[in-house]
Amino acid sequence: MAPSGEPPYLAIAARKQAEQKSRIPKEWLLDQKFVDPPQKNVLHIPRASGILTDKELHITESYSAVALTSAIAKNELTALAVTTAFCKRAAIAQQLTNCLTEIMFEDAIARAKWLDSEFQKTGKVVGPLHGLPISLKDSFKVKGYDASIGIASLAFNPATQNSVLVDILLDLGAVVYVKTNIPQTLMALDSHNHLFGRTLNPRNRDVTAGGSSGGEGALIAMKGSILGVGTDVGGSIRIPAMCNGLVGVKPSVGRVPFMGQEGGGRPGMGGLGMQACAGPLGRDVSDCEFFLRTLADAKPWEQDPAVVFGAFDSQGSMSRKPIIGVLRSDGIVRPLPPIAKVLDETSHALRTAGVEVVEIPNDVFKKCNSLANKFFGIDGANFVLDLLEKTGEPLSPWLQNKVARKEQVEVNTLASLRAEREELEREMLGVWRTGDGRVVDVVVCPVAGHPTPGVDGWNGVGYTSSWVLLDCAAGTIPVRDFSHSDPSLEFKESETVLGNSWDEVNRGMWNGGKVDRQMYLDTTLCVQVVAPRLQEKRLVEGMKLVEDAVARGKEGGKREMKL
Amino acid sequence: MAPSGEPPYLAIAARKQAEQKSRIPKEWLLDQKFVDPPQKNVLHIPRASGILTDKELHITESYSAVALTSAIAKNELTALAVTTAFCKRAAIAQQLTNCLTEIMFEDAIARAKWLDSEFQKTGKVVGPLHGLPISLKDSFKVKGYDASIGIASLAFNPATQNSVLVDILLDLGAVVYVKTNIPQTLMALDSHNHLFGRTLNPRNRDVTAGGSSGGEGALIAMKGSILGVGTDVGGSIRIPAMCNGLVGVKPSVGRVPFMGQEGGGRPGMGGLGMQACAGPLGRDVSDCEFFLRTLADAKPWEQDPAVVFGAFDSQGSMSRKPIIGVLRSDGIVRPLPPIAKVLDETSHALRTAGVEVVEIPNDVFKKCNSLANKFFGIDGANFVLDLLEKTGEPLSPWLQNKVARKEQVEVNTLASLRAEREELEREMLGVWRTGDGRVVDVVVCPVAGHPTPGVDGWNGVGYTSSWVLLDCAAGTIPVRDFSHSDPSLEFKESETVLGNSWDEVNRGMWNGGKVDRQMYLDTTLCVQVVAPRLQEKRLVEGMKLVEDAVARGKEGGKREMKL
Repeated sequence: MAPSGEPPYLAIAARKQAEQKSRIPKEWLLDQKFVDPPQKNVLHIPRASGILTDKELHITESYSAVALTSAIAKNELTALAVTTAFCKRAAIAQQLTNCLTEIMFEDAIARAKWLDSEFQKTGKVVGPLHGLPISLKDSFKVKGYDASIGIASLAFNPATQNSVLVDILLDLGAVVYVKTNIPQTLMALDSHNHLFGRTLNPRNRDVTAGGSSGGEGALIAMKGSILGVGTDVGGSIRIPAMCNGLVGVKPSVGRVPFMGQEGGGRPGMGGLGMQACAGPLGRDVSDCEFFLRTLADAKPWEQDPAVVFGAFDSQGSMSRKPIIGVLRSDGIVRPLPPIAKVLDETSHALRTAGVEVVEIPNDVFKKCNSLANKFFGIDGANFVLDLLEKTGEPLSPWLQNKVARKEQVEVNTLASLRAEREELEREMLGVWRTGDGRVVDVVVCPVAGHPTPGVDGWNGVGYTSSWVLLDCAAGTIPVRDFSHSDPSLEFKESETVLGNSWDEVNRGMWNGGKVDRQMYLDTTLCVQVVAPRLQEKRLVEGMKLVEDAVARGKEGGKREMKL
Repeated sequence: MAPSGEPPYLAIAARKQAEQKSRIPKEWLLDQKFVDPPQKNVLHIPRASGILTDKELHITESYSAVALTSAIAKNELTALAVTTAFCKRAAIAQQLTNCLTEIMFEDAIARAKWLDSEFQKTGKVVGPLHGLPISLKDSFKVKGYDASIGIASLAFNPATQNSVLVDILLDLGAVVYVKTNIPQTLMALDSHNHLFGRTLNPRNRDVTAGGSSGGEGALIAMKGSILGVGTDVGGSIRIPAMCNGLVGVKPSVGRVPFMGQEGGGRPGMGGLGMQACAGPLGRDVSDCEFFLRTLADAKPWEQDPAVVFGAFDSQGSMSRKPIIGVLRSDGIVRPLPPIAKVLDETSHALRTAGVEVVEIPNDVFKKCNSLANKFFGIDGANFVLDLLEKTGEPLSPWLQNKVARKEQVEVNTLASLRAEREELEREMLGVWRTGDGRVVDVVVCPVAGHPTPGVDGWNGVGYTSSWVLLDCAAGTIPVRDFSHSDPSLEFKESETVLGNSWDEVNRGMWNGGKVDRQMYLDTTLCVQVVAPRLQEKRLVEGMKLVEDAVARGKEGGKREMKL
C-alpha cells in the first residue's frame, strides 16, 4: 500500500497515462468538441479534426500498405511524410479509442528521416518495407520502451532488447511508432486493463473492440495504422479483426517469429498447451499477404529457432478448380440468424463466382472446444496473479469470475491431453477431403456464434480456439455491415436449443428481448477462412477468393441478398 | 509367477522365439557349420551358405535401392525375385546376428506376387517404391503382427492397424517383410531385450551393433535389407549406422510420419521433452535421399497431422560455394585419437576437393549435453517399468544401474527446461554463420568420442542427442575402416583430461591398457553431418559432398592419409 492507503498500481497507472499523454505533441491534441462526441461512431473525426493535412488524409486513407511502400520506393512519398501522417492519425485514434500503450513518435520520426537520407544517399530502399509504419501489440518488445502488457508491476521497466520480429521488421526498413492495448492477462476478448484502461470500438463505442489484439483493431479501423501485428492463442487476432471490420490472419505456430515477447506467463509454458502465434491485421488480404511474404522471404528461421523453414511460395496453394468447405456450426454454439445468413450469402457468392462449395460436418469439430478449454487451464493462473498482486491490482471486470488460482496439472494429465489432441488432429484431417476424396482447399466458418457484442459481452471462442488447438492457419474477412435494411434483424427467434450453457448465453444475445438488437447496427459481419497447418499461402489465396467473390456479389447489387 | 515358479516373461520369450523360428522356411536354415562360426566377422556367410542363387546374391549385393526400383519398373526384375532374395538373406542375417523381431515373409511374398500381377495387368508400377522391400524397426505397427518392442507383456497382441508410415510405404508400392530388434525400453545403445535376445554386429560379433535401431543396422550390414526405417531420440539411427558402417539420417521432428508407433511410454509424452523422429538407414546417401524425397512427395502431412508441410525440394539447399564447419569436440568428451584423426582426414578431403572448411567453436554446444539429459529424465521410468513388472521381466544388463522409478517432474520444471532450451537454440543459430557473416552450410562432427566399442560399451550420447535437443537434421557417413596399418593405433595416449566422468570413461576406452585396441579393428570410423532444422535436402546435399570428397580421397590413394 502507498502511504495514502491506495494500492500502488493506481499511482503507477496515473504516471503511465501521464507519460502517454506527454508523448503526444500539443498540436495533435483534439479540440475539446471532438474528444467525447455524442456519436457512437468516431471514424469520421480524423478527417473532421483539422489535424491532418489533405495530403496526410490521402496517405492514411487511400493507399494500401503495398501501394504505400511502392510509392516510397518510387520517391513519390517520403518515409517522413508517411510516418508523420500515421503518427498524427494514431494520436487522434488514441484520444478517441484509447488504443495505444507505448507512443514512440519521436523515435519513429527520427528513423523516417534516417531512412529518407539513406534513400537519398544510395538511391535504394533499406529493405522491402522501407518507410512503412507498422503498429505492434504491446507484448512485443522495443528497446527502450516498456512491454508492460497492461500490468502495473511490469511498467517502467524498459526492454533492453527487441523481440526477434521487431529486429527483422527494422532490418526490412519498417518504422515502429506505436504499441497497442491489450486485456489484462492477455486472456480476454475485450481490451481492458488497469494500467491503460479500456480500448473502445471506433465504429460504435458501445460494442467491444475485441481482444486480445483489440488496440490493433481499433487503431487500424481508425486508419491510424495500415498494418499491425497481433498475437492469437484463442482468437486474439481474428476476433478484433471481426469487431473492427478488418482482415486478420493467424498463421500456424512457427510461421511468424514469436520469440522475445512479454507474455505474462511462466517462460517455457508456451509450447506445452495452446501455443500462441503472431500474425498481421490489415485492411485487406493483399496487405496481410504482403506482410507474410516479405517476412518469410527474410529467412526468419535464421533468427528465431522456433520458426519453420520455408519461403512463402512453398507454403501451399489452392487447387486450380478450388473446392471450398462450409462449416455452418461448431455443434456447441448455434450461430445466431445474422451469422447463419452471412455464411449463406458467402456460399452463394462463391457459387455465383463458379466455385464448388461443399458442406463440412461438425461431428469431429465439436470435440475441439472442450479440449482447447482444458489446455487453457493447465497452468492455473498463478504466475500472472503473482504479477497483479505485487501492486494490489484487482482483476479486470470480465476476468473476475473467470480467473482464480488453481493447481497446475500434472505432467501425466498434460500428456493425456496431448494424446487426445493428436487423435483429434488426425480425425480432423478428414475435413480436407470431400466424400468422394477430392481436396477441400479451404474451409469457411463463423468467427463466433454472434455479431460483435457489447463491451465485455463476447461469448466463447470455440470457433477460433479450435483452429489453434489444431494449429491450422486461419483468417477473418469482413463480408458486410449489419444494416437497417437487413431482414435478419426481423428474423424469428431461433427455436433450436443445443442444451449447453454456451449456447444458452449465445441465444440470450438475440432472443427473448434481453438485448436491443439495434446495438448490432453498423457492426461488421465476417467469416473465417481456414487452411491446413503451415499452408499460409493456400490460406491467403483462399481468403482472396472469398474476398473477391463477396466483392463481386456486392457489385452485382446483391449487397442485400435475399436467400 | 508361472506354476513352475519361473517369472512369466520366460515362457512368453520362448514362445515368441519359437514363433520366429517357425516363420523361417526350412530350406533357408543355415548349415550347422555356419551357425556359430569361429570368425568374428560373418558378413561373408550369406554368399558362402549356398542358400541364395547367384541372381539373388546379385540382387542383394549389387544394386542400390534406387537402381532396384528402377530395374523392377523396367521389368528387368520382378518384385517376387527381389522380395524372395531379401527374405532369404534376412533369414540368414537373423540366424547369425539375431537382428529380427517379426518375420513376415509369407505376407511379403504374397504382396510381391500381387504387385507383379498389377504390373502385368496395367503396365504401370503401383507407386515409386513398387516392389522395394523395406525393413522396419519393431516400434512400427504392421496389422496382424506384434509391436512388442521386446517387452513380454506387449507380445502376442497383434496390431489392429498400421502405423501411418507403414500405410504410406504400402501405398507407394513397398514390400514390408521384417521388423527389427531394439533394446529393452528403446533407451539403450545396444539392442538387447529378454524377449528376442541380443543383436550382434555382423562385422565383428564382439563389438556392439548399436541401438536403439540396432537390428536395422545389423540387417542392412548383412545386406538382408537395402533400406530400413529406424527412430532416433538420442542417436538411435546414427549410432547403429556408425556401428554397422552405414548411412543413417535423423530428420527434424515432423519430417517423417511418426504416428501410431509403440513407444513403451505414456501416450502424449513425446512432444514434452526430447522428441523422437523416424528416418532411413541405408548403404549410401542417395538411397536415404530417395526414401526422404519419395516420402515427402507423397504428402505425408495429409495422413499424419504432426508432419510439417513441404515437398523435398523445398527443404533447403547448399550454397553454390559451400562452406563446411568442423566441430572437433563437444567440450565434454574429448574424441579419442582415431576419431580426431578421421575428422582431420575428412576436413583434408573436403579442402582437397576445393571446399572451404571452417572451425566451429564448442562454447555453446557444450551446454547441450546436460540439458538433453535433464529432458530424458522428465517422466521417471514408471510407465515402462510397469510394463516389465507385469511379467516379472528384469532390466536388461546395461540398464540395470541406469533405470529406476523416479517421480515425474512438475510442469513448472518442464517449462523451465523448455525456456532454457529455447535460449540455447537461439545461441546455437550462431553455428550457421562464419565469423564474417557467411552461411555455414553443414557442420561435420564426430558421432561419438570413441570408435565402435564392445557390447554394452557405448559411452554417452552428447554428440548425437544434442542435435535432437536442437531439432537439427543430422546423419552418419562411414569414412573408412579402422585398419591394421592405421597409425592412430600407435598414437600416444591422450594427456588432456576434461575433468568429468564421461570423459574419464571415454579415455578408459583407449588409454591405460584397459582395452585391447585390437578390438576396434575392422570397425568403421564415421563422421556426422548436420544441417539446420527442417532442411533435410540441405543435409542430404551436404552428406553427398562429404561422401564424394572422402571417396575421391580414397581413389587418390589417400586412404591411409598421414596428416
